[in-house]
Amino acid sequence: MPLRKFISPLVFLLFIYNCHAQSKNDFALQMGKLSCRFSLNQDGRPQYEVSFNQKPVILKSGLGFSLADDSLFYRAFQVQGVEKRSFDETWQPVWGETKNIRNHYDELVVHLRQQNPPGRLLNIAFRIFEDGVAFRYEFPRQPGLTYFIVTQERTDFHLAGDHKTFWIPGDFDSNEYPYTTSKISEVDNTELVKKSTEIAVRYAPDPYGVQTPLMMKTAEGLYINIHEAGLMNYSAMQLHVDRPSLTLSSSLVPDAVGNKAYVRAPFHTPWRTIIVTDNAAGILSSHMILNLNEPSEIKNTDWIHPMKFVGVWWEMQTGRSTWSFSDFADSVDANGKLIPHGRHAATTANVKKYIDFAAKNGIQGVLVEGWNTGWEDWFGNWKENVFDFVTPYPDFDIVDIMNYAKAKGVKMIMHNETSGSATNYERRMDTAFRFMTQFGYNSVKTGYVGRIIPRGEHHDGQWMVQHYLRVAEKAAFYHVMLDAHEPMRPTGVHRTYPNWIACEAARGNEFNAFSIGNPPEHETILPFTRLMGGPMDYTPGIFKIRNFRPEPDRQVHTTLTKQLALYVTMYSPLQMAADIPENYEAHMDAFQFIKDVPVDWDDTKILEAEPGDYVTLARKEKGSDNWYIGTITDENKRVANISFSFLDKGKKYTATIYADAPDADWRNNPEAYTIKKIAIDSKSTLALPIAPGGGAAISIKLAVN
Amino acid sequence: MPLRKFISPLVFLLFIYNCHAQSKNDFALQMGKLSCRFSLNQDGRPQYEVSFNQKPVILKSGLGFSLADDSLFYRAFQVQGVEKRSFDETWQPVWGETKNIRNHYDELVVHLRQQNPPGRLLNIAFRIFEDGVAFRYEFPRQPGLTYFIVTQERTDFHLAGDHKTFWIPGDFDSNEYPYTTSKISEVDNTELVKKSTEIAVRYAPDPYGVQTPLMMKTAEGLYINIHEAGLMNYSAMQLHVDRPSLTLSSSLVPDAVGNKAYVRAPFHTPWRTIIVTDNAAGILSSHMILNLNEPSEIKNTDWIHPMKFVGVWWEMQTGRSTWSFSDFADSVDANGKLIPHGRHAATTANVKKYIDFAAKNGIQGVLVEGWNTGWEDWFGNWKENVFDFVTPYPDFDIVDIMNYAKAKGVKMIMHNETSGSATNYERRMDTAFRFMTQFGYNSVKTGYVGRIIPRGEHHDGQWMVQHYLRVAEKAAFYHVMLDAHEPMRPTGVHRTYPNWIACEAARGNEFNAFSIGNPPEHETILPFTRLMGGPMDYTPGIFKIRNFRPEPDRQVHTTLTKQLALYVTMYSPLQMAADIPENYEAHMDAFQFIKDVPVDWDDTKILEAEPGDYVTLARKEKGSDNWYIGTITDENKRVANISFSFLDKGKKYTATIYADAPDADWRNNPEAYTIKKIAIDSKSTLALPIAPGGGAAISIKLAVN
Repeated sequence: MPLRKFISPLVFLLFIYNCHAQSKNDFALQMGKLSCRFSLNQDGRPQYEVSFNQKPVILKSGLGFSLADDSLFYRAFQVQGVEKRSFDETWQPVWGETKNIRNHYDELVVHLRQQNPPGRLLNIAFRIFEDGVAFRYEFPRQPGLTYFIVTQERTDFHLAGDHKTFWIPGDFDSNEYPYTTSKISEVDNTELVKKSTEIAVRYAPDPYGVQTPLMMKTAEGLYINIHEAGLMNYSAMQLHVDRPSLTLSSSLVPDAVGNKAYVRAPFHTPWRTIIVTDNAAGILSSHMILNLNEPSEIKNTDWIHPMKFVGVWWEMQTGRSTWSFSDFADSVDANGKLIPHGRHAATTANVKKYIDFAAKNGIQGVLVEGWNTGWEDWFGNWKENVFDFVTPYPDFDIVDIMNYAKAKGVKMIMHNETSGSATNYERRMDTAFRFMTQFGYNSVKTGYVGRIIPRGEHHDGQWMVQHYLRVAEKAAFYHVMLDAHEPMRPTGVHRTYPNWIACEAARGNEFNAFSIGNPPEHETILPFTRLMGGPMDYTPGIFKIRNFRPEPDRQVHTTLTKQLALYVTMYSPLQMAADIPENYEAHMDAFQFIKDVPVDWDDTKILEAEPGDYVTLARKEKGSDNWYIGTITDENKRVANISFSFLDKGKKYTATIYADAPDADWRNNPEAYTIKKIAIDSKSTLALPIAPGGGAAISIKLAVN
Repeated sequence: MPLRKFISPLVFLLFIYNCHAQSKNDFALQMGKLSCRFSLNQDGRPQYEVSFNQKPVILKSGLGFSLADDSLFYRAFQVQGVEKRSFDETWQPVWGETKNIRNHYDELVVHLRQQNPPGRLLNIAFRIFEDGVAFRYEFPRQPGLTYFIVTQERTDFHLAGDHKTFWIPGDFDSNEYPYTTSKISEVDNTELVKKSTEIAVRYAPDPYGVQTPLMMKTAEGLYINIHEAGLMNYSAMQLHVDRPSLTLSSSLVPDAVGNKAYVRAPFHTPWRTIIVTDNAAGILSSHMILNLNEPSEIKNTDWIHPMKFVGVWWEMQTGRSTWSFSDFADSVDANGKLIPHGRHAATTANVKKYIDFAAKNGIQGVLVEGWNTGWEDWFGNWKENVFDFVTPYPDFDIVDIMNYAKAKGVKMIMHNETSGSATNYERRMDTAFRFMTQFGYNSVKTGYVGRIIPRGEHHDGQWMVQHYLRVAEKAAFYHVMLDAHEPMRPTGVHRTYPNWIACEAARGNEFNAFSIGNPPEHETILPFTRLMGGPMDYTPGIFKIRNFRPEPDRQVHTTLTKQLALYVTMYSPLQMAADIPENYEAHMDAFQFIKDVPVDWDDTKILEAEPGDYVTLARKEKGSDNWYIGTITDENKRVANISFSFLDKGKKYTATIYADAPDADWRNNPEAYTIKKIAIDSKSTLALPIAPGGGAAISIKLAVN
């Protein structure tokens, strides 16, 4: 990170306001139905509260820190002054869900000084938007505080009720859990963590710890989402639930020696975000988190292109073939060469099949996993030197594949699995990126499956947060797009590094292949939780939903057309068609939707939404009049009631509807679908039956006269 | 490390011997006066004992491990078989104290199997030499043990008496303590660690922990030295002293989560070494540790050249100038440029003075510290990104200096201080070495002053041991010689990486500049302790012994000619003339010895030695008939009785004697010396008075007829 990133331009105003210090310790912001109030309590502790329509959403909640050299850096403060300003700007993301994003907020910065020597300074900045409140801590440059260690961030969120909550455990190393829906007072992750043996690395020491984005719904029908924005050079914030008091407290992921963050002033924390709306759609349409991030650090973004891709991947997930080339690392012949076991997926011939399929169907990219040496012995032993990222297996001819892909107009996607050994990746990373450049890869999927090295660090701690950013910066230097798997969950930083085009950081479709899988409601929750921070490489598009493995209980918990709907409901500028070509070739009529659906949008409309139940979205293709709709349900059938009023008035459109067959059902008849075309205009409505665990996709194009 | 390094060729013999498994559990080795016996006790615990002249030196002492998945991996063993072999070879080091080194030992490998399932295998290899015993653990390739974690190595050294011991605290991060001489039963490092505030980072959790090499002397006049050889991919071994039982136990430096080593079988530990002699000279002339290391990994060593050097360094140590360019990191002008404070040492003009001095006096190298940005804010805050290793300060013109040095025939020595942030160095290391190559540096002095990053790791733990090796390997790749400061102490690994030409890893001369310093006995102990593992960059040659700083108590605890003697007694192929040119120019007659003394030798004779009291060495210059003698004493005056019988019989020599003046004294008259020439031959003897804290140096050349 260039240091200037951490120098807030606001801090220079402090001294001006010093001269006008107010005796008052109580300041408010208000926008639309939302209001936020800052105050100091009698101990000099900063606190805040949030209301919606004059009703409390967050009751008075404490703010502050414990530092290594001052465990009470949350009290004995005095207000030195405040600043207020308004901001209203509309900006265009490099890629996204809408062409234009309005960033409209009022800001209050409270300048605090601790009464006891050396009179340390702390600013707290609040921003209020139409749909939420955010605040962050700012440590200005000051003589009494330069380098310091955060041992605890003492930010509370005192909830006004025992809300329905969609949560996953506060695991320091994984976001790959299924969601539990419970009252906040019922949060206890113990059993879930214990039984989730399908997750490679689990470390959740607090039974009452949960991850953000945390989605809640009040008894009065308010929707509240708590997360953070702009996580850089700090640990991810998880939340500890104090069940008796209904209070959430920030719980930063610790480092190897138990510290939470190493900081040099001037510095500001990420924003703590509270989105509040009276309808679920308002949560999904919020741009607050993105707005709180800094503009792009990358000046020339011409080389960043959203795309769809296929990959040598699902066939390994389903056990048809393997990442590895040999059975064991020591399966070597007399010349020391690995003895092939014959089930290796990433062979030149097999990769060419995927390239052929991609080229034939207008899919831009091909990912190949298991192309490089090391997979015989890559996981589970906290091993530091696993992969070198530049040595192909002998049956993967990288030059031949490069030339073949180039001739077919297909881009290859690099795969760099680190097995969690970030130290090994860092020392080889420059070489790895030079290698990508040499062989024509302009995007990379990284992976962090395993316990982190440096040992004692966690996936979501400050050191790794900086590691992922270093990778994004290195990738930007080499004009490579990044799709990080198993990093900390996103917080909108892709606004600043738009080459960081996708992330996993949640329980993806792959769990349906190798575990008990994801319940049908899973994809109706993700947009309200994980995707609040940024796009997800969920890898949708599985067409062979059952019988892809010998185990009879393995299946994707979906209908086929729900998989199509995910291309719209699960936003990602890097979107995989995850199944193997032969399964697509059995349903080329349905595959037409995947061929058609774009990955970059001019507009998005949330037509229906309820977390855990259903989501219906319409999106307008970038630079086009075409619209695409995705609608999904949980395990219950329903009727999606779609109004096409978002279409241009007076124009005629043709809608192609990919829908569950009348007798479709995720469990017993998942691959039954119908495709039909209808004529529509902006006055049309559609009542579309959705099967249990099902979904539907609609492509809408201007009618040809 | 190439993996093959860990595959012992011996393990393949196991199965042969399996067939001839003996019922006997007791095996012995004997050479000269030394013997060593292996046995299993009734719990199946492996143990060993060592005797000298039939008298016990190490009483029966336990062997074995606690592993993460088997805390009792030190008992329930059965002997499966043994192997014995003899070895006798003479080899030539790339550089060293003698031209030829004889490696003569008998070896016993005991193959053990644990009785309980899965019947894990452990071999223990013993080697007996004329002057010592060594053993190591070997984990053969086996189905029941591949990856494992060592939580404790359970190697004991049960001493036969309460010996006089020369020790420093078992600090995980520093070897830079002065030595304490006490009985083993009196070891307690608490006070020393507490008061040694001049050491940058101290972490010695065990009050009864000591470092190796540990030097002991028995009441009967036996000398015992315990250390290790070939430390790679493992943590440094410190020793815990159980004072009541007089037992030393291996205490491996832990990692961030408390583990001692991460291992994959096949693997062997470093050798545990016990040198035993009945005269102190025998300790100093032992090559056992070097012999236990593997031959050079570097095939072409033509580019490795021992040398002397001067450096822009002592002037900063004594406070005349600074490493930094500005007062503070944020002392910047309106253009963001650092504002110079005017006391920066590494200016182009000043560096040229050193180059001129080196060129004029035949000194091959010039070190410059403080040449690169970052020194304003480099230490004490556990900061990760301190230096980039490639950005000179604006007043250091690297191209001009490169050209100037080249024209004068002087080699520049790079300085890479990491401040302990090894992660930062690793990710920038390749760039740093390419930079050295670009600007003509063929050697580098590294530094690790500060708490280690990855946080929670220690200077002497396995991760850092591997880091230093990675640096040595990277340096070898770029044909750069390495002088590592603040690494773990050497264990003879310079046999394997002869470009790792020197190390600090002990309390160097610099402590005399910035602290209470080193007592006069210090340099009489170092050869018996720290230097047992390899050469030390002690930085001798201080001529201005007092009044180099305002503080009246700061002085080097030496006479001037003792500083000359150190060039002989303190072996290093990279030897600094550490004082500033103007102090040498005041004593050019004495400086002649530094000009003359070589740094590479064909032979070494230990003429007199007693740890803590005195050392007298004679060394023969590589490829020459010239001999050089260094003799030093502690705080007591003495007479060095030197016999020249090592000289070629019948030849006539001229000896130039640089000796303390009759009234010299380290405290009151340290810079008084005499220089005289005498004629000698192999029958000559010399009784040379040495002042308190003094020393003398003699250069001996064939007389010109």
